[in-house]
Amino acid sequence: MSARAGSTTRVRIGQVEGDHSRERSDHLATEEPLEIRLAVPRATRTLAITMRTPGADFELAAGFLHGEGILGSRSDVREIRYCTDPELDAVQQYNVVTVELTATELPELRGLDRHFFTSSACGVCGKASLDALELSGCGKLPAGPEVDTETLYRLPERLRSAQGLFESTGGLHAAGLFTVEGELLCVREDVGRHNAVDKVVGWALLENRLPLSSLILMVSGRSSYEIMQKALVAGLPFVCSVSAPSSLAVDVAKKFGMTLIGFLRGERFNVYAGSERILLPTPIGEVSR
Amino acid sequence: MSARAGSTTRVRIGQVEGDHSRERSDHLATEEPLEIRLAVPRATRTLAITMRTPGADFELAAGFLHGEGILGSRSDVREIRYCTDPELDAVQQYNVVTVELTATELPELRGLDRHFFTSSACGVCGKASLDALELSGCGKLPAGPEVDTETLYRLPERLRSAQGLFESTGGLHAAGLFTVEGELLCVREDVGRHNAVDKVVGWALLENRLPLSSLILMVSGRSSYEIMQKALVAGLPFVCSVSAPSSLAVDVAKKFGMTLIGFLRGERFNVYAGSERILLPTPIGEVSR
Repeated sequence: MSARAGSTTRVRIGQVEGDHSRERSDHLATEEPLEIRLAVPRATRTLAITMRTPGADFELAAGFLHGEGILGSRSDVREIRYCTDPELDAVQQYNVVTVELTATELPELRGLDRHFFTSSACGVCGKASLDALELSGCGKLPAGPEVDTETLYRLPERLRSAQGLFESTGGLHAAGLFTVEGELLCVREDVGRHNAVDKVVGWALLENRLPLSSLILMVSGRSSYEIMQKALVAGLPFVCSVSAPSSLAVDVAKKFGMTLIGFLRGERFNVYAGSERILLPTPIGEVSR
Repeated sequence: MSARAGSTTRVRIGQVEGDHSRERSDHLATEEPLEIRLAVPRATRTLAITMRTPGADFELAAGFLHGEGILGSRSDVREIRYCTDPELDAVQQYNVVTVELTATELPELRGLDRHFFTSSACGVCGKASLDALELSGCGKLPAGPEVDTETLYRLPERLRSAQGLFESTGGLHAAGLFTVEGELLCVREDVGRHNAVDKVVGWALLENRLPLSSLILMVSGRSSYEIMQKALVAGLPFVCSVSAPSSLAVDVAKKFGMTLIGFLRGERFNVYAGSERILLPTPIGEVSR
């Protein structure tokens, strides 16, 4: 029997309805911390701790490090492993992932400070956030691919039917990578929306498929700055979500030539940017602010 | 005319339905970064940058700092202000908040490293996360208050009708503080669930109402470790959410004697911990794993 935590956790709950109550068993999405470490021959450094749903932990670590500009491709990775410190119990060991680099020195990690800023620099407006992406080497994404509406209408149902956990716990976000024909290549789930995206990008990195310039990313919830930033760094030009985008998500899409679709439900959706990638029965013209 | 960003942003979108498409105006939840600075007479330090929806920024800063153990009460705050650096344009100034302490020295900020860990300490399992809360001074919350089911059934609708933005953008989380009679004391919205909770806790801190030992917190989405941690530090024993909790949220509730309700919709809900605070028509007995 493994002590490794599963993606769902069984609990006893009280269910109350109207005047009645009963006790029953239920499944919750598991949430546990994951410590991500970077290692080179003579040094190891803990880089981040993120609350996540166990499963696809190596992909999560790889995708996170790609989004932070630390891993460019599969060849930057020598090995990814769980903690083998014998002093830790088994559950703890599965909450620590070490990514061993092929490089001999740890990379410059200054850029990571933005997560928990220690300088006193001013100027963190939305525009500055967009500029920061540009400074980190992100340019406007090239044209294509083109996708027709019938394909888009099928994505939510395909994502949902590929999601095992969501149905049983109601508490998980999903991210899926689709081809322009609507074929699902990879789906990952997590209590954190950004983690689900890190997992699919990490899958692509480890499968040597980056950049994802001909694919569609579909997320189950809303789309935020963080989701768009991760898609952009992975070269993903086409992002769809079931719910609304934020203002900054739309700004990123416009500035970097990405297509952003929201409220994709049934046979309808909203286009917030990049309508030229959508094959429409009737054109809606250029969508702009 | 103010250059300050509003809570919603107006955009032109393309709306596609079946074979038809049209262009129309829409409102999105605004997402912009907020830089939170701490100041004492001879020093200023940037502590965090969080993506947030503008509005209640001082409360957000106060609530965030309370959750991090930096502000205990209103008396720790000398002043909260926007950036007045004349070199910044107006929008940028409203994205920087400085909290001036009554203390003369900046506090020890070691504990904040957990957001972006730089040590190589091992042992970050779920149990370690719970132990960390205990080490930071959180004990089991005292008994009470008791709430009846009829009051609970009314909370979601009261929260929803107090939410101005959610209806128009579909992209915002809400957090509300209620009395045990179901009276809404404070509601705040944000693209980030944790920010909405920081805002209501910050409101309470600035109103000198902490600890919130006789109130109910209701959140619009799911409940995670982070939500429960913020409630616990504010002394809030009763947390309800519209959707599912995570496994670690339930663990925090059980360990610290909190009541956690999920899927509160219509005349039904699930009780994950602390059923002794719920006045039930028929008892469900002790709910335990």
